[in-house]
Amino acid sequence: MPEDAEGLAEFAYELGLLKRVRRSGWWHAGVSDPESIADHTMRAAQLAALIAAEEGADPARAAFLALWHDSQETRTGDLPHTATAYLAKPDPRQITVDQTQGLPWRSRELVRGAVDEYESRQTLEARCAKDADKLDMLLQAVEYRDAGVQRTDGWIDSARKDLYTETSRRIAEAAVNMSPLSWRDR
Amino acid sequence: MPEDAEGLAEFAYELGLLKRVRRSGWWHAGVSDPESIADHTMRAAQLAALIAAEEGADPARAAFLALWHDSQETRTGDLPHTATAYLAKPDPRQITVDQTQGLPWRSRELVRGAVDEYESRQTLEARCAKDADKLDMLLQAVEYRDAGVQRTDGWIDSARKDLYTETSRRIAEAAVNMSPLSWRDR
Amino acid sequence: MPEDAEGLAEFAYELGLLKRVRRSGWWHAGVSDPESIADHTMRAAQLAALIAAEEGADPARAAFLALWHDSQETRTGDLPHTATAYLAKPDPRQITVDQTQGLPWRSRELVRGAVDEYESRQTLEARCAKDADKLDMLLQAVEYRDAGVQRTDGWIDSARKDLYTETSRRIAEAAVNMSPLSWRDR
Amino acid sequence: MPEDAEGLAEFAYELGLLKRVRRSGWWHAGVSDPESIADHTMRAAQLAALIAAEEGADPARAAFLALWHDSQETRTGDLPHTATAYLAKPDPRQITVDQTQGLPWRSRELVRGAVDEYESRQTLEARCAKDADKLDMLLQAVEYRDAGVQRTDGWIDSARKDLYTETSRRIAEAAVNMSPLSWRDR
Amino acid sequence: MPEDAEGLAEFAYELGLLKRVRRSGWWHAGVSDPESIADHTMRAAQLAALIAAEEGADPARAAFLALWHDSQETRTGDLPHTATAYLAKPDPRQITVDQTQGLPWRSRELVRGAVDEYESRQTLEARCAKDADKLDMLLQAVEYRDAGVQRTDGWIDSARKDLYTETSRRIAEAAVNMSPLSWRDR
Amino acid sequence: MPEDAEGLAEFAYELGLLKRVRRSGWWHAGVSDPESIADHTMRAAQLAALIAAEEGADPARAAFLALWHDSQETRTGDLPHTATAYLAKPDPRQITVDQTQGLPWRSRELVRGAVDEYESRQTLEARCAKDADKLDMLLQAVEYRDAGVQRTDGWIDSARKDLYTETSRRIAEAAVNMSPLSWRDR
Repeated sequence: MPEDAEGLAEFAYELGLLKRVRRSGWWHAGVSDPESIADHTMRAAQLAALIAAEEGADPARAAFLALWHDSQETRTGDLPHTATAYLAKPDPRQITVDQTQGLPWRSRELVRGAVDEYESRQTLEARCAKDADKLDMLLQAVEYRDAGVQRTDGWIDSARKDLYTETSRRIAEAAVNMSPLSWRDR
Repeated sequence: MPEDAEGLAEFAYELGLLKRVRRSGWWHAGVSDPESIADHTMRAAQLAALIAAEEGADPARAAFLALWHDSQETRTGDLPHTATAYLAKPDPRQITVDQTQGLPWRSRELVRGAVDEYESRQTLEARCAKDADKLDMLLQAVEYRDAGVQRTDGWIDSARKDLYTETSRRIAEAAVNMSPLSWRDR
Repeated sequence: MPEDAEGLAEFAYELGLLKRVRRSGWWHAGVSDPESIADHTMRAAQLAALIAAEEGADPARAAFLALWHDSQETRTGDLPHTATAYLAKPDPRQITVDQTQGLPWRSRELVRGAVDEYESRQTLEARCAKDADKLDMLLQAVEYRDAGVQRTDGWIDSARKDLYTETSRRIAEAAVNMSPLSWRDR
Repeated sequence: MPEDAEGLAEFAYELGLLKRVRRSGWWHAGVSDPESIADHTMRAAQLAALIAAEEGADPARAAFLALWHDSQETRTGDLPHTATAYLAKPDPRQITVDQTQGLPWRSRELVRGAVDEYESRQTLEARCAKDADKLDMLLQAVEYRDAGVQRTDGWIDSARKDLYTETSRRIAEAAVNMSPLSWRDR
Repeated sequence: MPEDAEGLAEFAYELGLLKRVRRSGWWHAGVSDPESIADHTMRAAQLAALIAAEEGADPARAAFLALWHDSQETRTGDLPHTATAYLAKPDPRQITVDQTQGLPWRSRELVRGAVDEYESRQTLEARCAKDADKLDMLLQAVEYRDAGVQRTDGWIDSARKDLYTETSRRIAEAAVNMSPLSWRDR
Repeated sequence: MPEDAEGLAEFAYELGLLKRVRRSGWWHAGVSDPESIADHTMRAAQLAALIAAEEGADPARAAFLALWHDSQETRTGDLPHTATAYLAKPDPRQITVDQTQGLPWRSRELVRGAVDEYESRQTLEARCAKDADKLDMLLQAVEYRDAGVQRTDGWIDSARKDLYTETSRRIAEAAVNMSPLSWRDR
């Protein structure tokens, strides 16, 4: 089992890259030093759980799916929206298979299963996780707008489109009409 | 229910602060622009799941506990180790109660339950999450060492002490003897 | 005396941490990479001297008090306003006693005396230094507002409250109604 | 007196620039995001006081001189060492005269007097302040070396040369042979 | 020829400093972490080529002149506008002579010739390069304005003055009336 | 022609993105805040000219080709080496065609011609530019190594492979055996 531990450590080091890789869309919006993939992933996972709780889905499962939803970006980076015209979106499942090759089988199946379920968008938990991905972007756009960034409308609008759940739509509605600092005033 | 959505959005904005707050221990170690709480939380949650999978615990639950383990730091910041001599560690449960006051009850109970379970350290999942908190610190210390930081020994040593699970001890052992870049050579 | 020199060097290295620790309130305001404690301390000390000069107090003494007013934050970090509900404010004098333990007695008494006088707020110099602490925050809030940060009002308002000296009140009044760049136009 | 307040606010805004301007020498040493002038100034002022205390000089005065020693760099930036071959060092007194033009006379004389005394290097306090300027550079060089920067020798060596006071020479000696983290081990 | 190679490598390392040195004017405008000299130089060179193409000048030559127009700042830093009152602008040709001393003669003459031609402003290519220097500043000012910076007017106005070419004047006119993100909407 | 000016401004704004996009390979190497594409491009263009001068090629043309060699990354980002297993490298010529669509024909042909020539690698100038791309990476790797980054060997080794020109091979040889600060000692 020492080899298993090495495989786990190696994978964890690869995941550490997500702390350094920046979300490329924000550069387009004019932010010079934007959040990391990890920053985005944490709140997306938290939001997935909250949405799932309200929607009657399994909160821990929804959060878990969100936790791996961008983990493939260690290998490809965060492809900006404008890239789609020039390259075929890489297959997250294939990358995950390669990333998890050195893991002991329980861990391996765990991560692959999460990516599969998320990408298939069949379960309510996967849809909560996908909504959370978009909602975090919306909230972050409002936060950047509040920090001075002028042209966040495109990000806010695209985040609001095609949300799966009613809860997400309501959070989106509330979020755009509210100060990110309101929690401090209670 | 619009008020519920507002409560959820407000809480999510508060959590966004974890993307900006830095992990204060690394300033002590000499790092000038260290990782955020969110950066740390993401990998801790991922590690919690992997450890739990190997230990026969519930991976999604372990990850879920890790996801909230530092969420109280929106209100107190990340208190450095040296602060313990001068102030009583604030009670995470109390802060969580306040943070979740405006949430609809399902979400509220969900988050409070997670913090309670994590802080009690009674379940195997809570112990996996706690180990993951320490392991991420160890891995990050090695990563900073690899980036040039000379005095990370204290962080590495303290992370290795008092780990609950055998899996975590083995990952720690493997991690200190290995390059953070080895995954790229496969 | 070589041991004295070591004690002085050790204390100076501890103070160096103030160059890295960020002012946590600005994260709340939405600033992603805010000023350091040292940044704040320098201008607070300069302002303390200017206020003292106008108020008929000892400018060098007022500046000197301001120079140490946050020096305890090497050990506790910069506790945000929201932390006050969850922990008792640590005693600056006690921390200073510990920090200066290894200093030769003249230096030790010097620093302890400055922190005592500042915390007691009895002398005019201490009040000028306290006002300078607030004024620098006000000026910085205006500077961040000028850089795009939308919600600085809370910081500006709280800085203007309870200023001890007439000079500080007048500077505050002038500062909020003026461009931070006006000096370049002369 | 409202005009006086405006002059004071205007000067304080100009001084705020020192929080943003970086110490250019560290770019030469390979540091990509180095400390600000304000970071340097705070510890230099603190060191000046400690040196003065040990040397029997006036600590508050020495700190006060150090507080203004680079304040002219709002107008010229921090000229790197390599610039001296290509331009005549600007006169700090002249810049100070211009910077303080709009100040009420007490403040004006205060700042001009400090810069005059510092530049003349005639008083023991001025020499303590000058030594502090160099000592902070030495300590910072060791701190950057500890963070991985390989070629700090030139900065350390030049800082140790031509120190005026015995206390400074001893602190320099102690500092180069010691860990910047030793204070945490007490 | 090994010595030649060493001279070339040495010069290239010196030029690398331009990636770290920040454009000092933006600190004055309130930007806390502004672009590097290299950032500015790249787009200035690209703009010089485009302007030259439209003006019937040699695009590659114009770009080439722009490529070296700030290369002397490795030695002096980027002197802010406010410095001109206090020091004589250093002679770019003299600095270039010193920087290129260790180069083999072809390279040496090449770089010196470019700086000479640029500084003389006699050729159309030199004027296109100078216009490009200003245009990049104007575009960057608009980009910072779009990121929240309030007081960029001075930079925009000064960039528009005294442009040599009609093409540059037209680009300036178009740029101030347009969104920096419009290219994404095509 | 006002429409032409708009097309030119629009393209220039798109190019400005290269100042913000980071070189992704350095994140893999452990650098947390690496250089921009523009930083890299400037020195690559300068190096291309120097190599061309020594190789008897046209220096301005070689620099010009280097100036556009990564300009397509506004749309795709900087794809890391590990991405090649998962997606087909996008065609730079196609992206350039799209980017330059709104340009007046002289500018349009100019940029397209440069990208074509660079990608074909048929001319000596194109080969000098390609070598410069690699050499800048090698120099930057040494610079990061000097700033503490431990695992730069892979980048240095890959940069030295398959250089087209003898001059580049000699510069590479000299650069790895030399201090990036040696120019300051002359």
